[in-house]
Amino acid sequence: MIIDCHGHYTTAPKALQVYRDAQIAALKHPQAPRAKGLVAITDDEIRESLENAQLKLQRERGTDVTVFSPRASAMAHHVGDETTSLHWSQHCNDLIARVCALYPKNFVGVCQLPQSPGVPPERSIPELERCVTELGFIGCNLNPDGAHYINADTTAFMQFLTADLFKDFPKLRFIIPHGGGAVPYHWGRYRGLAQDLKRPALGDLIRNNVFFDTCVYHLPGIELLVNVVPLDNILFGSEMVGAVRGIDPETGAYYDDTKRYIDALTTLGDADKRKIFEGNARKVYPRIAKAIG
Amino acid sequence: MIIDCHGHYTTAPKALQVYRDAQIAALKHPQAPRAKGLVAITDDEIRESLENAQLKLQRERGTDVTVFSPRASAMAHHVGDETTSLHWSQHCNDLIARVCALYPKNFVGVCQLPQSPGVPPERSIPELERCVTELGFIGCNLNPDGAHYINADTTAFMQFLTADLFKDFPKLRFIIPHGGGAVPYHWGRYRGLAQDLKRPALGDLIRNNVFFDTCVYHLPGIELLVNVVPLDNILFGSEMVGAVRGIDPETGAYYDDTKRYIDALTTLGDADKRKIFEGNARKVYPRIAKAIG
Repeated sequence: MIIDCHGHYTTAPKALQVYRDAQIAALKHPQAPRAKGLVAITDDEIRESLENAQLKLQRERGTDVTVFSPRASAMAHHVGDETTSLHWSQHCNDLIARVCALYPKNFVGVCQLPQSPGVPPERSIPELERCVTELGFIGCNLNPDGAHYINADTTAFMQFLTADLFKDFPKLRFIIPHGGGAVPYHWGRYRGLAQDLKRPALGDLIRNNVFFDTCVYHLPGIELLVNVVPLDNILFGSEMVGAVRGIDPETGAYYDDTKRYIDALTTLGDADKRKIFEGNARKVYPRIAKAIG
Repeated sequence: MIIDCHGHYTTAPKALQVYRDAQIAALKHPQAPRAKGLVAITDDEIRESLENAQLKLQRERGTDVTVFSPRASAMAHHVGDETTSLHWSQHCNDLIARVCALYPKNFVGVCQLPQSPGVPPERSIPELERCVTELGFIGCNLNPDGAHYINADTTAFMQFLTADLFKDFPKLRFIIPHGGGAVPYHWGRYRGLAQDLKRPALGDLIRNNVFFDTCVYHLPGIELLVNVVPLDNILFGSEMVGAVRGIDPETGAYYDDTKRYIDALTTLGDADKRKIFEGNARKVYPRIAKAIG
């Protein structure tokens, strides 16, 4: 089985954006009542939005199931206030739940949180619990409030390196997307910084808590990733359909078809590749077994 | 000849920090006159600060000349106002000029700019011109206002990719330090983004304007860098003595002895290594010839 740990619903039916546009327009009238409203999307529209995109690509690329979440750039936690984020997150998460119900073999849900600037993170817990206990989701996307994705990834790692978060929360597990931002490329730098700061060795620091996906869109990057990061901490991910949608003229294949890069690795055996494709995802997301067997 | 394009005066005599502390303390009394004041450092103190640090390491590692600038983390452009930054920058740059005068074969100056939040960049030009025309400096450090160094590097590249800066300024040359932040690791991502955005191919986009140094503190990172980035756009740099000062237990050598990584590359011939060690630096810094022959 091949589990893609990183996919967003970037192809959601238009009605979702129509709702969002109206919600944002309503912010100009702060006195008006804050109705949650409806997102009117049919099951057929959902099927249509996936059949020629994510599902087609799963079949073509030979992956089995995608850990699926709302569109990252649309989360926009900075827009409006806590209520704006809550309503928007609930609608986006409900839509993911419908996708997973229509295609239970192809998608497992991960939720967006109703984060909002200045609002304490614990206010996101009810929506997280709703998604996990009621909708069957297996995790959440955390917005670390970085302006550029790759920077947010790198910032998260630097904060893990300098803080004792995992002493306080030994069972907390993070996947840093996009191959860990800049981290594997600068693995020596972070090893050296950890040493200078009298922190644990990086392998020990991340072992049970920090994982990197394989959303790195060229073979040399993937080679570096598996060369320096412990294989137990790497999860297959493609982020398709996502930030980069074109075909690489150097390979004739889609940039984001990251399975090809892993297939091409000659330094890894089958058991190692199975860890990356499936075993590590099952370890990081214990709830996935209930969803995919 | 081996030119290290990235070194900071991290070992400056204590009197420099004493000056800075007093300058910051004085900010509490905004009514007081804004005297530039003096930094009292003798030539012997300068020699002492370098002999057992940068100069010793140059000899031990077999590098010849370092492009040398004030300590990056101490620039702190966010502290105080424009006058604060101007006084501080002038003192830091004057000290670099003294280093270069004492050791003209070992150091060539690059200046700190008196940047300050909200102050137009052109207000930094007089200090830049003073450093280049009076002090013999060959470039400047630009603070792109990023919170973490590696993020600032990555942000700069993303801005170059999305903007037409080099159409307007075809002769402007930037070195993105720390091996270009996250960029080489995500070279496929940026190639794909450039393609999606109908921008030039990355090789064309950077050719005469954007360069990466080799401040990447492990061999796999350097291998990736020379594998994906055109060799004409890579300059040797170590940032010694800098952010990472320890010895790597895996190699027994200093993390920041980046010359060893380049020496170890089997995929590059001598002519390619000479470009990285010297030729490209001469191209990026035309004024260096006057300083080092």
